[in-house]
Amino acid sequence: MAKKMLGMLLTSVLVCGSLGAGTGHAQSGRALPAEKKEVKNVILFITDGMSLSDVNLTRWVQGGKPLEMDAYFKGLVRTYASDSLTTDSAAGASAYATGHKVKSETVSISPDKVTMPFIDKPSEQEAANPLPTLLEAARLKGKGTGLVFTCELTDATPAVFASHAESRDNAHSIAEQMVYSGVDLVLGGGSGYLVPGDKEINRKDGEDLTKVLKANGYEYATSRIDLLSSQTNKIWGLFNEGALDADLDLDPQKQPTLAEMTTIAANKLSSNQNGFFLMVEASQIDWFGHDNDPVGIVTETQAFDRALKAAIDFAKKDGNTAVISVSDHATGGLNMTNYDTMKDLQPIFTKAKHTSYGLEGRINESNYKKMLEEEYGLSDLTKEEEEAVKKGLKDNLSPVIGGILGERAGVSFSTGDHTSEEVGLFAYHPNDFLPTDYAGRGVVENTDVGKYLQLILGLDLPALENKLFLPASDLEAKGAKVTVDKSDKENPVVVVTKGTKTIKLPVDKNIALTDGKTIKLSTPTLLIKNKVWVSSDAAALIQ
Amino acid sequence: MAKKMLGMLLTSVLVCGSLGAGTGHAQSGRALPAEKKEVKNVILFITDGMSLSDVNLTRWVQGGKPLEMDAYFKGLVRTYASDSLTTDSAAGASAYATGHKVKSETVSISPDKVTMPFIDKPSEQEAANPLPTLLEAARLKGKGTGLVFTCELTDATPAVFASHAESRDNAHSIAEQMVYSGVDLVLGGGSGYLVPGDKEINRKDGEDLTKVLKANGYEYATSRIDLLSSQTNKIWGLFNEGALDADLDLDPQKQPTLAEMTTIAANKLSSNQNGFFLMVEASQIDWFGHDNDPVGIVTETQAFDRALKAAIDFAKKDGNTAVISVSDHATGGLNMTNYDTMKDLQPIFTKAKHTSYGLEGRINESNYKKMLEEEYGLSDLTKEEEEAVKKGLKDNLSPVIGGILGERAGVSFSTGDHTSEEVGLFAYHPNDFLPTDYAGRGVVENTDVGKYLQLILGLDLPALENKLFLPASDLEAKGAKVTVDKSDKENPVVVVTKGTKTIKLPVDKNIALTDGKTIKLSTPTLLIKNKVWVSSDAAALIQ
Repeated sequence: MAKKMLGMLLTSVLVCGSLGAGTGHAQSGRALPAEKKEVKNVILFITDGMSLSDVNLTRWVQGGKPLEMDAYFKGLVRTYASDSLTTDSAAGASAYATGHKVKSETVSISPDKVTMPFIDKPSEQEAANPLPTLLEAARLKGKGTGLVFTCELTDATPAVFASHAESRDNAHSIAEQMVYSGVDLVLGGGSGYLVPGDKEINRKDGEDLTKVLKANGYEYATSRIDLLSSQTNKIWGLFNEGALDADLDLDPQKQPTLAEMTTIAANKLSSNQNGFFLMVEASQIDWFGHDNDPVGIVTETQAFDRALKAAIDFAKKDGNTAVISVSDHATGGLNMTNYDTMKDLQPIFTKAKHTSYGLEGRINESNYKKMLEEEYGLSDLTKEEEEAVKKGLKDNLSPVIGGILGERAGVSFSTGDHTSEEVGLFAYHPNDFLPTDYAGRGVVENTDVGKYLQLILGLDLPALENKLFLPASDLEAKGAKVTVDKSDKENPVVVVTKGTKTIKLPVDKNIALTDGKTIKLSTPTLLIKNKVWVSSDAAALIQ
Repeated sequence: MAKKMLGMLLTSVLVCGSLGAGTGHAQSGRALPAEKKEVKNVILFITDGMSLSDVNLTRWVQGGKPLEMDAYFKGLVRTYASDSLTTDSAAGASAYATGHKVKSETVSISPDKVTMPFIDKPSEQEAANPLPTLLEAARLKGKGTGLVFTCELTDATPAVFASHAESRDNAHSIAEQMVYSGVDLVLGGGSGYLVPGDKEINRKDGEDLTKVLKANGYEYATSRIDLLSSQTNKIWGLFNEGALDADLDLDPQKQPTLAEMTTIAANKLSSNQNGFFLMVEASQIDWFGHDNDPVGIVTETQAFDRALKAAIDFAKKDGNTAVISVSDHATGGLNMTNYDTMKDLQPIFTKAKHTSYGLEGRINESNYKKMLEEEYGLSDLTKEEEEAVKKGLKDNLSPVIGGILGERAGVSFSTGDHTSEEVGLFAYHPNDFLPTDYAGRGVVENTDVGKYLQLILGLDLPALENKLFLPASDLEAKGAKVTVDKSDKENPVVVVTKGTKTIKLPVDKNIALTDGKTIKLSTPTLLIKNKVWVSSDAAALIQ
C-alpha cells in the first residue's frame, strides 16, 4: 500500500514533469512539438576523460578515415563544477545525471560550496541534499534502467546515477546503494565490492551482496559466456574483481567488450514496454590520459567508437531511441604538433600488442628489453630511457612507456591530471532534436545535457527534489523521533519511533523493518554528512 | 568584345555551376530545396590559428559568460594539407577559397605533392595549376567582393582569395595580383607593399600601385577617419605600412577595429544588387599563438568575437546573408590545466594594458621592471625571470613575457608552431542550412566548407577550372608563340605572337597591350613555376 501511495505521488509528479522540464530554459532550435522531442529510450555514453585531441589522434591512427562518432558531432560541452573550473568525474557526471552543477568529488548531492559563476548557491538547508537522478526518475516512471562500464561499479561515473554520497571515495556505501537501487541491469567490473573478504575492495560489513541480488531476482553473471547465454532481463554481470581489462588487453573468452555489453544491455532493456534509460561509460580513456599512455587512449577510444556504433545501430533500427555521448572532462592534455606526415604515427600504434596496463605483472627488470620490443617494436631504447624504465618498474611504469611511445609518435602531454577545455557532444535523435537545440547554443553546459535528457525522457527531476528523499526533520515534524543506531559501525540503522511504532531503516538499503515485516522502499535510506534521508514511502509508514 | 565573349563563356559556366556544385557530394542533412540553401551574401571569417582552448581561455577571462560565437558553434573542421597532417595558413585557407586540399605554403594552386590520404593526386600536367577561388567566381558572377584583415595584404590568408603563387613568400607578386584582381574592397594592413622604396616590403619593380588603384576608380584610404568618411563602395584602405596593431594596442584614432572594418565592408558591399562575398580574417591570433602570448591570444579572440557579432547583426537584419567562421589551423597548443578557481586567471588579463607586441620599441634594459609592472602588474619577477627578460630584449621578448604571464595565469603552451587538432566551425544561415548538413557529418573537411560556400553562393568552381586560366600550350595549339620577356627582371612580360599580331601580357596584371591599345582582362596573367597562365579573354585575343 505504501508503494501504491508512492506510485500515485510519483505519477502526479512525473506527469507534470514532462511539460515542466522545459519551462525556464531557452527552447530555441528546431520548433518541434513536445511529442516529437520525447523518445522512448535513451542511451547516454560518458567517455571519461576523452578530449577532442584524443579523438583526432585515434582518427589518424586509423589512417585518417572518419570515426563513427564524427557523423554525430554536434557541439561542445562546458564541464566546470560548482567549486572548480576543472572538474572531476563525480561532479562532471553528476551534472548529466541530475541537471545540477555539484561540488567536486561529490556523488549526486547538491553543492555546499559554490565558487564558480552562474550557479545558485543553495541555502545551508538545501546544501548536500541527495539530488534525484535520471536513472531513479526513469525507474520510478516504470522504464527499464541499466549501467554499463569498464571500471569498478563504485567508480564515480556509474555511481552518480544510482547512489548519493558526500564523497566518491565512499565505495562500500555506493556499492550497497547500487545493489539496492532497483536498477535492472549492471554490466562492468568490481565484483570484489559485493563480497566479504580481506582485500581492501571487499566488504567490511560482512554482507554478501551477490546473495541479495539473487534474492531480489537478478541473474548474477561473472563471465562473458554467462552474459551471452543469459535469458533474463534483470541481470548483474561483473566480469572482474576490480576493473575490466582494457579493450586491447582483455581475454575475449572471459570479458565482454564495451560494444558487446552495449548491444546486450539495449536488447535486454528494450523488453520493457515503457522504454529505458541506459548509461554506458567508456571508463578507461581517463586512466590512460592520467598515465599519459597514448596506446591506451587510442585503443579505448576505438572501443568506445565501436560501442557507439552498436548503440546507433540499435537506435536506428528501433526508431524511438536517442543516443547522446559526452565526456565528463578531458584528461592529460594530449597534443599532436607539427606532423609533416603520418609516417611516425601509425607504426607505433599498429605494432602495440597491449596497453601499458597489460604489461603489469609480466614485465620486470630482467625481461623489459625483450618485452618492449615484442610489445611495441621498441628496439632502440636510449640509455636514459632504459634508466627511466627501470625506475618506472619500481614506481609507475605507464607514463614511462607512454612517454617513450609518445616521443616516437610525436604525441606529448601537458599534464597527468584533468584539463578544463570543452568536451565533445555527439548526438543522435530520431527527430533530430538535439541538446544544442534545447540550449539554443552550440556550446552548452553539462547541466543543459542533463536537462535535455529529462525533457526527451519525459522526466521532471526538479519536481522530484524534496519529494524522493525526505530529511529526518520531516519525520520529526510528524512527532517521530529519529536516531541512528551505529552499534554495528559498518551497518548503521536509522531508527524511527513514534508512539509504540518503531521502524528500522538500514542505511544504504531500500528496506524498512517494522512489525516483524520487511517492506521494500522506492529508494535506499541515506546518511549524507551525518544527515538522514529516507524515501517518501518510508516516511509514509509514519502517520 | 573580348570581354563580352568572356562574359558569355562565364555565364554558361556559372549557370551550370549553381546546380553542379552539389553533384558528387554527400547531400544529407536537412532536406531543403536548392533555393533555400542559396543566399545572396556570404561573410566568411577565418580566425588564423585560433584553437578551441584559446576560446575557452577567452571565455573565462570574460568571467565565463558565453561568447557571441558560442551560439553559432556547429562542428569541427579537419585542416590537413595535401602533404602534411599539420597545415599552414596558405594551404589551410586555400582549402576554403578553392575547395581543394593543396600543398603547404602554396597560394591557391593545385598540389604537386600529395602524401596525405583521400586526396586525388593530380597528373604532372594538372599539378601547380592556378585554382579558381570563391572571390574570383563571385566577382565574375557580378557579386561584390571584399577582403578584411589585420595582417599585411600579402599574408597567406587574404592572398589565397585574390592571387595564385607557388609560394606564400612571393609577396610582391601577390600584392600586384591583388591590386589587379578586381576585388571591390580591401581593408587591412601592408601599404608598404604598394609603393616603391628602400624597405624590404617596398616594391622593387618601381611601380606605385596606389596610383594604379586610383586610376582604376578606387578610393585609397590610409586612416580610420578616411574610412569612416568614405562615400564610395570601391575602396582600398590600408591603415599601416605593415600589419595593423593588435586590437589591445591600436590607436583608435588611426586604425579601425576588426568589427568596424567588418561592418563598413558589409554595408558598402551590400550596395551590389547581386550580393557579395566578404572574407574577414582575424589575423593575429596565430601570431600570438606562435609567440605564446596569452594576452594577445585572448584580446585578439575578443576582437574577433565583436567582429562576428557585427557580421551576425548585419546578416539577421539583411535576411539573405550567411556567416561562416573557421580557422585555418590551431597554433601554440595552449593548455589550461587544474584550475580550482578563476582567481589566478582574471587579474592577469584585466591588468594587461598591451600585448607583448605593444611593448616593442618602448621596453628596454633600463625600464623593463617599471614597464612590466605598469603594463601587467608584474611586480614579483624572480631572478630567473629577470634574466630571461634581459635575454628576450636582445632576441624575442614575446614568448618570455608570455611565459611569465602564463605561469601566473596557469596557461601553458605545447609548441611555438601549429598544431593538428580540429578547429571550430561556427555558422549562421538564414534557413539553417549548415556546412555539417552539406557534409553529412559534424566533423567536416576544410574542403567541405569551401564546397559548401560554393553551393550557397551558387558558384561552381570545378567548372571554372581549366577555363578561367589557360596554359601557354592552349595558345600554342592555336599556332601562337609564347615567350616571357624578362629583360626587366622585376616586370616580366608574357609575349604572344601569331603572324603579325603581338600581344604583351605583363605578369600579375590583368591587362593586355596590343595594337597600341590597353585591354582589361578578367584575371591577371600568371607565372607559376615558370609556367605561363593567361586569362580566357586574353586567349580570345588570338584567333
